[in-house]
Amino acid sequence: MSKISQESLKAFGGEAVKAVILAAGLGKRMGYKPKGLIKIAGREILYRTMKNLTELGISEFAVITNARYREEYEGFIRKYGFNAELIINRHPEKGNGYTLYLAKSHVGGKFILLMSDHIYGKDFLKRAVKGEGLVVDETPEYTDLDEATKVKIKDNRVEDIGKHLKDFDAIDTGFFVLTSEIFGIADEILSEKGKAELSEIVKRAKLKVTPINGFLWMDIDTPEDIKKARMLMVRTSIKGAGDGFISRHLNRKISTRISTLLVDHVTPNQMTVVTFLFGILSALMNFVSIPLAGILYQISSIFDGVDGEIARASMKTSRFGGYIDSILDRYVDAAFLLILAYVTIKEPLWWAIAVTAIFGSAMVSYSTERYKAAYREDIYRDIPAIRCLIGKRDERIFLTMLFCLIGQTKALFALLAVLTNLRIAATVWLVWRNKRN
Amino acid sequence: MSKISQESLKAFGGEAVKAVILAAGLGKRMGYKPKGLIKIAGREILYRTMKNLTELGISEFAVITNARYREEYEGFIRKYGFNAELIINRHPEKGNGYTLYLAKSHVGGKFILLMSDHIYGKDFLKRAVKGEGLVVDETPEYTDLDEATKVKIKDNRVEDIGKHLKDFDAIDTGFFVLTSEIFGIADEILSEKGKAELSEIVKRAKLKVTPINGFLWMDIDTPEDIKKARMLMVRTSIKGAGDGFISRHLNRKISTRISTLLVDHVTPNQMTVVTFLFGILSALMNFVSIPLAGILYQISSIFDGVDGEIARASMKTSRFGGYIDSILDRYVDAAFLLILAYVTIKEPLWWAIAVTAIFGSAMVSYSTERYKAAYREDIYRDIPAIRCLIGKRDERIFLTMLFCLIGQTKALFALLAVLTNLRIAATVWLVWRNKRN
Repeated sequence: MSKISQESLKAFGGEAVKAVILAAGLGKRMGYKPKGLIKIAGREILYRTMKNLTELGISEFAVITNARYREEYEGFIRKYGFNAELIINRHPEKGNGYTLYLAKSHVGGKFILLMSDHIYGKDFLKRAVKGEGLVVDETPEYTDLDEATKVKIKDNRVEDIGKHLKDFDAIDTGFFVLTSEIFGIADEILSEKGKAELSEIVKRAKLKVTPINGFLWMDIDTPEDIKKARMLMVRTSIKGAGDGFISRHLNRKISTRISTLLVDHVTPNQMTVVTFLFGILSALMNFVSIPLAGILYQISSIFDGVDGEIARASMKTSRFGGYIDSILDRYVDAAFLLILAYVTIKEPLWWAIAVTAIFGSAMVSYSTERYKAAYREDIYRDIPAIRCLIGKRDERIFLTMLFCLIGQTKALFALLAVLTNLRIAATVWLVWRNKRN
Repeated sequence: MSKISQESLKAFGGEAVKAVILAAGLGKRMGYKPKGLIKIAGREILYRTMKNLTELGISEFAVITNARYREEYEGFIRKYGFNAELIINRHPEKGNGYTLYLAKSHVGGKFILLMSDHIYGKDFLKRAVKGEGLVVDETPEYTDLDEATKVKIKDNRVEDIGKHLKDFDAIDTGFFVLTSEIFGIADEILSEKGKAELSEIVKRAKLKVTPINGFLWMDIDTPEDIKKARMLMVRTSIKGAGDGFISRHLNRKISTRISTLLVDHVTPNQMTVVTFLFGILSALMNFVSIPLAGILYQISSIFDGVDGEIARASMKTSRFGGYIDSILDRYVDAAFLLILAYVTIKEPLWWAIAVTAIFGSAMVSYSTERYKAAYREDIYRDIPAIRCLIGKRDERIFLTMLFCLIGQTKALFALLAVLTNLRIAATVWLVWRNKRN
């Protein structure tokens, strides 16, 4: 048994649950690539799993790969500074049961076992780490049934398991919570046959099953799977709580498609800058054509979702990103309405109304962000009723476009002046009612 | 020995350090009142001490008073839900050494001893709880030397102690960190003389001294002391980090005087409403007289400090108070500049500049509050350089008054438009440089 100690390797704790990651496959269908290191939406499959597990308190890993991919996995572990030990399987032909067996001297007591080529969503992992035995999915939503490993269950234990089972109850998620007892059974099979598949071990062990149904997990076998996973990563990266009606029913439908296309090519910060410049361009367009400006403004509102989606999908969110994005959005809104007012308004009274609309637009965001500064929590999570108030940015921009198209900009300013400031009053009232102290 | 158990009393932990509070004095010079319960700036002396100690991790108390004030102290403990046991001293004539002795069966190992009629600032307490023996002050700033108990120190221990010492090194702060050994010495003196003063015990024990110099603490003996302490509570309640030049050198000097006058009569929220209405009044005054409006606006800026000062001085700060105050300030600023623009500006170009000034004014606050929402810390604490940027509210208002007095409102809008937005750009740049990730 070969073992490679990483410089960053810490002494094993007695209590800590370790995760063993099987990554000894050759990735034939992917054109001989280490599947765990394939980037999906800007991040390696394994980065996602290991990062999410770390956040769930599981921060020690043993990654078992083959001699061919040793350097790649070493580089990966070093790059991100994971607390992971690399184990080399020099006999991949002995099956993935043998690969698991190599972890024997690296874990003690309870440990987690998972596949390097599976994408697991954080909500899935949150539940799975508390499971026992084999985690199965009775209603898999994202997995191709033809390719999946099926499980027949009896008395909450595995009765049969295999790709070609006709009669089955659930699908194998490739995620296990095991104890070192499993190595005894692996040993047994290995001495009988000189090789062992994980599914044989699982069947002979009559492992307990833990059903976790309908959450995001996916086996990545083919280039088509990568495409599908990329799309899923983007779709599930929508923040949501602060989204208004237009965002939910129009903008997000388009922005997630754009994000899926861009996520592997553009950084969130690049997208923030592009969106800002496009927003300012839409504002300047008011000097040329107000209807066109309105349309560009609405397009910029769709783009506005992309930087956040890319950042979350590629696990590259940053506080500075959120900070700067939020300030630039205010400037785009102010610039658009200011130039629109400049080209359409002469009377001081209407200017005063336009000022009230511009100020109110900035204050809508101020009233929610200031809440987070005071209460250290998201206002939409703390006080869900605030989600129902209209006047969010996506809604204001859509209204602005409509009024620009019909050329009623004074009515727009009057409407925005009332809408935004009423919304702020309602926000303050709801905060007062819910969180007075 | 009498003992009254509070319903809220928890079992004593083995490790927790308890605070014993001597409150058996009759408060003769105060007209026979329980001195610990005298309100200074809206809060009982003992509330301040116990609340601050609780925040420093010392949350179990034994309060020793006399039979006469038993009900008052019971009510006080119940009102605030302190984890405090009340002990009655039925023989006050035996001296405050005897009062301390009554705590014998209520503490184990290390404990804190302090006087109910002393005000201790939080910065003092933070250091004092880590002290050993008698905490003394070699350079007392707030205490009347005539009335103070002096301490002669030798080899870091008390050599002599008394009110009338001619030769002394430091002043007794009435704050001790003791161990139960002290009760042996108290016992000794009590059996010899039938009574005991704390100072005798301290002297005979040759207590170690811990010097903590120049922080806020005060012995409250006379009505004059109350006045002085009230003023100190207000003065030391200035938040400070976000104060601009005008605030530091003008507004705070006046607002703290107003706060000292009002702190016992007005709640922070009442003051927030009054300040808001006064600010709106100053804005409306632009319809009548611009110079007068400018002066009222500057006065409202002085008032603006009062609600926060009262809230902090009386330990009545609330998150909602901070939230609503911050939103109302934005509305006052927008209202003032909007009405000022309305009565002085006709040309769209100047309106556009006014809009930039009004929007920029709101965004100055947005850029700092949004930082707190993102980074969960005060921007002035995280990035001290931001304190040096000009364009804070107090400075903008003072500038506004000056330009209103000389009648140059267009120049004002141009200046504010540039000043505020440059400040925001500088803020974003500093955040980027310091906290990019």
